[in-house]
Amino acid sequence: MIESKIINCLLNSNKIAIVSHENPDGDCIGSMLALYLALTKKGKSPRMFLKNNVPKNLSFLPAANKIEIKDEIDEMFDVLVLLDTGELERTGIKNIKSCYKKLVNIDHHVTSEGIGDYYYINSSAAATGEIVYQLVKLMGIDNDKDIATCLYTSIFTDTGGFKYSNTTSVTHQIAGDLINMGINFVYIVNKVFDEMSLSKFNLLKDTLQTLELFEENKIAFLTITKEMFERNNASRDETENIINFAKNIEGVEVAALFIEEDSRIKVSLRSKYYLDVAAISKEFGGGGHPRAAGFSVSNLELNQIKNNLLLRLKSDVK
Amino acid sequence: MIESKIINCLLNSNKIAIVSHENPDGDCIGSMLALYLALTKKGKSPRMFLKNNVPKNLSFLPAANKIEIKDEIDEMFDVLVLLDTGELERTGIKNIKSCYKKLVNIDHHVTSEGIGDYYYINSSAAATGEIVYQLVKLMGIDNDKDIATCLYTSIFTDTGGFKYSNTTSVTHQIAGDLINMGINFVYIVNKVFDEMSLSKFNLLKDTLQTLELFEENKIAFLTITKEMFERNNASRDETENIINFAKNIEGVEVAALFIEEDSRIKVSLRSKYYLDVAAISKEFGGGGHPRAAGFSVSNLELNQIKNNLLLRLKSDVK
Repeated sequence: MIESKIINCLLNSNKIAIVSHENPDGDCIGSMLALYLALTKKGKSPRMFLKNNVPKNLSFLPAANKIEIKDEIDEMFDVLVLLDTGELERTGIKNIKSCYKKLVNIDHHVTSEGIGDYYYINSSAAATGEIVYQLVKLMGIDNDKDIATCLYTSIFTDTGGFKYSNTTSVTHQIAGDLINMGINFVYIVNKVFDEMSLSKFNLLKDTLQTLELFEENKIAFLTITKEMFERNNASRDETENIINFAKNIEGVEVAALFIEEDSRIKVSLRSKYYLDVAAISKEFGGGGHPRAAGFSVSNLELNQIKNNLLLRLKSDVK
Repeated sequence: MIESKIINCLLNSNKIAIVSHENPDGDCIGSMLALYLALTKKGKSPRMFLKNNVPKNLSFLPAANKIEIKDEIDEMFDVLVLLDTGELERTGIKNIKSCYKKLVNIDHHVTSEGIGDYYYINSSAAATGEIVYQLVKLMGIDNDKDIATCLYTSIFTDTGGFKYSNTTSVTHQIAGDLINMGINFVYIVNKVFDEMSLSKFNLLKDTLQTLELFEENKIAFLTITKEMFERNNASRDETENIINFAKNIEGVEVAALFIEEDSRIKVSLRSKYYLDVAAISKEFGGGGHPRAAGFSVSNLELNQIKNNLLLRLKSDVK
């Protein structure tokens, strides 16, 4: 079976590199670290490369500081393991195609076809971490708390905390097994998901005050001005998730968050059930997914942008 | 074993009443409804009584409209089943002690000692719903989507979405089994957890303004006054989860939410890692779990309660 072939390939190789996609998320980091720790336990000395820094909320993970941030790799590896994506280009590492002899690809995305000498694509896995969990088991490694911590992070983040429709009974079974290894999942969840800096709390508090509702509450706007960032000493990445407070209001179909930046206004859009916000964003020069998209405007005042968008949205909400 | 004795007692009784505590939460409603549906499937015609209305976010649950809201029961039942609390007084129903011939008590709270003719208290269960799940299985009922929906709601709410420390591998195993019964857990989670009425949004917005921090941000207080309920046309059950916004702030170990009611002040407590808020609540005449507990005070002003609690908490946070 492919799992054994991959394990044999890895355990019979000397120089192993593990890579994943740019703008890394919890599944990407968690599955990289779990595989790294497992191979290390098997006497290997793998290396990990990413184009972008490990997000702050994931930096507590075991061995996270061993990830090397590079946009070019200047060595040759016996095996390159590509995790959580089916495209080498998505690593963002320039010479990624010329730094390995053999390529192994492990992913769970439905769009992945699998590339390289050995690939294991399982689109019914909720996270790449689920697949790495199986490989770690097959390597005969059990009850390793550090590996379990990384895999739990993978699975928790990619299922939005067991809430997204990709969650299966297998996901829960694995989560239960990882808990039995004695991981501190309360701490993990708090660090990865829940913890809010005081500046983010204050930014959220101020942003909720700006709610505007239109068309019998089907359209909701929230606004963050430059002054609000300054007053709360908050950074741009602390705006994450705030738009959902508008989207989650009963009756709202589409929410927009207007963020005033130095020379432009960034508009994020979320819809609940039917509105294609990717199409609407495209009309305004942006893009995204049908339920989560956005665009930027640099030549108009905030109020003009709001009016233009409102006019456009009004024709689409029923 | 006690499970079989309880099942025999129920299946051999004619008039069965199911009750739970006032201010019902997801575990209370979910486990009541699951037991009701299971007994109905076994040919019984149980009735359900609660002092307070079913919270809006739980009203979509199967058979939720069969719950009778009463503060007095004017009939005699063969068996009364008390769920999710170990004290009859906590039902808030006046003549609760004189309306049954036999009493069955099912609960998972560590403070419960068990009362009545048959009691099954399992404090290692994350939710009363976990215990009812076992009973339903033992009754020979399997693959009932409605019952599974209620039990998933019980477990999801009482573990804060598998995030609280009461979550075990058994919890995850049960969740996986319930998912396999084909429940729409994405819809359940959205209805129960994520969707917010406009009045709740406004109440949240106002409550975040009341944040008070003490002891280098280790202690956080939020307050909801009667005036805030009125201004936002919000109800008591719309306060759920608001306390977590204080708890989740970086550095906070313990959060308190003070809710002004007609004749008393209700205090909810949450701790992050180490503080035993059940023990502290007990000192103030309340109870709960180590990381989630509460108490009520009726003879003191809000500021006095805050001062007393702050004094008590200060000695415990490091």
